[in-house]
Amino acid sequence: MPQKYVDVDTLKYMLYDVHNLEGLLNRERFQDHDKESLDMFLESVKEFADREMFPYFKEMDEQPAYHKDGKVFVHNQVKTMMHKGGELGLISAPFDYDDGGLQIPLMTQTAAYYILDAANNHLPGYAALTQGAAELIVHFADEKLKETYVSKMLSGIWGGTMCLTEPQAGSSLSDVITKAIPTEEGYYHISGQKIFISGGDNDFAENVVHMVLARIEGAPKGTKGISLFVVPKNRLKQDGTLEWNDVTTVADFQKLGQKGYCTTHLGFGDKEDCRGWLVGEPNKGLHYMFMMMNAARIAVGRGASAIASAAYYASLEYANERPQGRKLSSDGKKNPDEKQTLIINHPDVRRMLLQQKSIVEGTMSLTLLAANYYDRTATATSPEEKEKYHQLLEMIIPIVKTYPSEAGIQAVNAGLQTLGGYGFCEDYILQQYYRDIRIFSIYEGTTGIQSQDLLGRKVPMKNGKVLELLSGEILKTIQEASAFEELKTHAQVLGGKLQLTQKVLGHLLPHAMQGNYERYLADASVFMEFMSLILMGWMWLDLGTHATRSLQEGGDYSHEFYNSKIHTMKYFYTYELPKTTGLSEILLNTESLTIKKDTEPII
Amino acid sequence: MPQKYVDVDTLKYMLYDVHNLEGLLNRERFQDHDKESLDMFLESVKEFADREMFPYFKEMDEQPAYHKDGKVFVHNQVKTMMHKGGELGLISAPFDYDDGGLQIPLMTQTAAYYILDAANNHLPGYAALTQGAAELIVHFADEKLKETYVSKMLSGIWGGTMCLTEPQAGSSLSDVITKAIPTEEGYYHISGQKIFISGGDNDFAENVVHMVLARIEGAPKGTKGISLFVVPKNRLKQDGTLEWNDVTTVADFQKLGQKGYCTTHLGFGDKEDCRGWLVGEPNKGLHYMFMMMNAARIAVGRGASAIASAAYYASLEYANERPQGRKLSSDGKKNPDEKQTLIINHPDVRRMLLQQKSIVEGTMSLTLLAANYYDRTATATSPEEKEKYHQLLEMIIPIVKTYPSEAGIQAVNAGLQTLGGYGFCEDYILQQYYRDIRIFSIYEGTTGIQSQDLLGRKVPMKNGKVLELLSGEILKTIQEASAFEELKTHAQVLGGKLQLTQKVLGHLLPHAMQGNYERYLADASVFMEFMSLILMGWMWLDLGTHATRSLQEGGDYSHEFYNSKIHTMKYFYTYELPKTTGLSEILLNTESLTIKKDTEPII
Repeated sequence: MPQKYVDVDTLKYMLYDVHNLEGLLNRERFQDHDKESLDMFLESVKEFADREMFPYFKEMDEQPAYHKDGKVFVHNQVKTMMHKGGELGLISAPFDYDDGGLQIPLMTQTAAYYILDAANNHLPGYAALTQGAAELIVHFADEKLKETYVSKMLSGIWGGTMCLTEPQAGSSLSDVITKAIPTEEGYYHISGQKIFISGGDNDFAENVVHMVLARIEGAPKGTKGISLFVVPKNRLKQDGTLEWNDVTTVADFQKLGQKGYCTTHLGFGDKEDCRGWLVGEPNKGLHYMFMMMNAARIAVGRGASAIASAAYYASLEYANERPQGRKLSSDGKKNPDEKQTLIINHPDVRRMLLQQKSIVEGTMSLTLLAANYYDRTATATSPEEKEKYHQLLEMIIPIVKTYPSEAGIQAVNAGLQTLGGYGFCEDYILQQYYRDIRIFSIYEGTTGIQSQDLLGRKVPMKNGKVLELLSGEILKTIQEASAFEELKTHAQVLGGKLQLTQKVLGHLLPHAMQGNYERYLADASVFMEFMSLILMGWMWLDLGTHATRSLQEGGDYSHEFYNSKIHTMKYFYTYELPKTTGLSEILLNTESLTIKKDTEPII
Repeated sequence: MPQKYVDVDTLKYMLYDVHNLEGLLNRERFQDHDKESLDMFLESVKEFADREMFPYFKEMDEQPAYHKDGKVFVHNQVKTMMHKGGELGLISAPFDYDDGGLQIPLMTQTAAYYILDAANNHLPGYAALTQGAAELIVHFADEKLKETYVSKMLSGIWGGTMCLTEPQAGSSLSDVITKAIPTEEGYYHISGQKIFISGGDNDFAENVVHMVLARIEGAPKGTKGISLFVVPKNRLKQDGTLEWNDVTTVADFQKLGQKGYCTTHLGFGDKEDCRGWLVGEPNKGLHYMFMMMNAARIAVGRGASAIASAAYYASLEYANERPQGRKLSSDGKKNPDEKQTLIINHPDVRRMLLQQKSIVEGTMSLTLLAANYYDRTATATSPEEKEKYHQLLEMIIPIVKTYPSEAGIQAVNAGLQTLGGYGFCEDYILQQYYRDIRIFSIYEGTTGIQSQDLLGRKVPMKNGKVLELLSGEILKTIQEASAFEELKTHAQVLGGKLQLTQKVLGHLLPHAMQGNYERYLADASVFMEFMSLILMGWMWLDLGTHATRSLQEGGDYSHEFYNSKIHTMKYFYTYELPKTTGLSEILLNTESLTIKKDTEPII
């Protein structure tokens, strides 16, 4: 196994220097925290990850979670993740003090989980989903339900899941048919099937609390008739003991990657004795679920970025140790008498490493920016401020979920290629990262769905005012960068890309205005890639500006550290951002080739 | 398992209508063949693939080849592939009648293996490597060696391998250190280690014939001191029986994919009793090996394209069967009362399928074009003709190897994404194609190495005259297409891309002229992608021209068939070819960011 999976200096640099976490700590909610205490938290997380997670990464792939006799068996470290992780506050940290939490900012939480995901992405999901499920209860359920479930979940004694997807519906939640029939006792009888339920069962937790979307008898069709229920695997009896609640693990899914993170098919009410408790009001289930969705989407982007980080350091280590071939001399030949060079000295290998680094650190910055918007929304001191940061978060969230996932696949792919034939072998870890990361562009709404959200809902939001708001933020960075002679060109380039975005939207929006939404959204995935690169250009200009300023005015890190950020920014502007030129050409097309017509030839 | 893995109609259309195989059949070498007989051969191959290969595809992944007690154990179908495949002529087909072959064109051979690779890519390599090893013996070894080995190999009784890579050298063949010490008996004592040897051993073949690169004692350093040897696992004694030749299977490599196709680490001469027989002259080993390399590189491109084909049909089948979601109405909403639509009707899914189809069929055409050049070179009736097609083949070969491999990964990736969460599950086959295809951009010279070959050796060949020759061929297609009103725009676009290539090279070549080869080649991989897309634009314009002509003048296939080719051409020109605009911008950069300088920051 390689030595390093994340650069904690870079993570802290992003938190404090780039995204000004300290500026948040004077908010009332966070007033008990300072840089020192939060850094201690991060350090304890890193120690935990080093000791309890990273060493088991390969093993968890080789010994997948499995389903047998209606039970799911998982690796022992799942227990450690939940119990010791629970003690460490890994589940409870962002909750209110009143609910047993530490009120830490989502930025810190994101940095902490970045470390966990990079160390061993098969484990953090167990804790993160429990946290998400508990959050739904805390925010929307009544006191009784809170009392029953929350503390057990935050300590990691009980697990939690989100049950959305059904076999016949897939991503189309309006087709959810799991039934909820009210009873006079106050609870509902639940019956139905849910698939792709991560962490759906395991052999260590004495209970798993499922947050289930279901339709109350007689509810309207579509998304407006969906309610949210707490459906525990085992229900609490009056005497405080647990009895089985007719939740069955029907099967599990064996997968390409993340094999240690179980994915299950659950059946509710096969014996007609499955009880569910309504959370909040009827028919608002999807609304509640979506209130949690932004944090969930930040988490997906973060996880993908973190896996790409681990893959990057693994391939960097290899490139720094592996001698092969020779550098070209000025006659274009190689001299066999010369000693072999390390492969990191070959420009093509260096290009692949810089590609990885630019994706890893750029997406790390993007997910922390999203967490920053989240924290600012949650702790806003005025309605205007709240609205502003909520809108900014809404605008970027589909990109925060998607770009790290899609570009992360490319980054890990480049990492694997760096190892040549060894990259394809199970003795080396790159092939596992290659498999693990592949799920992220499917999780929590596929890239196709996120792209429809970006172009279909977010871009037109408030008649384009929210996009303007975001552009304003980007223009601020352009202005700051322009103050440095060495960044002027990059600032100009990014300004040009904003204008190009306007041109592209000027071409696309008329389709929507004419009611041709299908055509408007047909190339949404291409627009996603286009706009993601521009947002990454923004991230890198910002990183370059901070590094340039610190080089001139001094900072906590070495010159090498700052120079490497500036060098990677240059890489991104030279090798990645120009791809937007071709993508804009695609987006400006006047065809409708992907829209089915009656005369459409077979494909 | 899905039903279909290759479209034989499209394959035949490419062979006969697009690449005019019949035009080759009047050559003396091929005069016994006609379309009917070759089609019969292809049909028997398809039947064999349907019956003996495709049904075992998943099983071979789930039961990988493995190494135990110095032996390698493989799936039973390997025996079928070699023995029944041998009977069918799958190893011998391209050889001379005198050597036991059928003298079939490489084009037909390529189409046949395309079917095999698409059916089950874990199997054809055993036969193909045996064929390649036999070819080296036939072309360069003396009669005695030919008599000893060739007929057993062509019938599939004995296997064959190519032993190039060594642990300390990787792709850098100039660092090969396997030793060959001459003896008075005429053979050499061989000692050394070879890694990544595909088909290196198995439990069914009574012998495996290794073609080994080694250095005769006292030979010059570098690539000029490498000789080629036949080193059988078991050597033939005077009495006709076999005795062990001190070739050991030290270990195997367990891999991300192609698990049924064993990859071994071989040791030669551990007991100082390994005998090798020199093939041809000393120190010409690499030269001989490279004479076979073009066919080997066509084979890699073909294999990747074939896997992408199988993945395409698997995801197409899913998309045609899976209902999910609804089409958007003119108010941008979906009506939950409406029936669910099949996912193939969603533009984003259709886009992914068209991307796959454009890559699959475009690369199928490209590999058949390369085989056509190969056949024309081999059977040329004048030195000028021979030179012309040899040069054309040399020019395109790095792209033929690389683009199907790299774009094939993207195509399979889109195929997996089409299935959403199911794509990530082992119950569905996409995840296996995703793993299997990943090796192709590493096999037979990585993408980085092929890119250096393209820009470093091929583009400057004969002072650019060979590139001009290729441009001339492309211009012919542009001219033919321009005769059709509906293709004029596409023809013009491709013409513009040729000019853009000149501009890019005008920017890059001065680096080489100034002796700065490292800078000249630094972005070779980007140039590879750029030029690959232009070659694919050529393939698709050609396919579009043939289809348009057949629609007007009549042809053997349906209107739907031709229209689908034209539609896919339009897709390629709208969604893929424009990427060259961004890539050219990257190539025109004036930086040297990937070249290590003394002051380089850590990356």
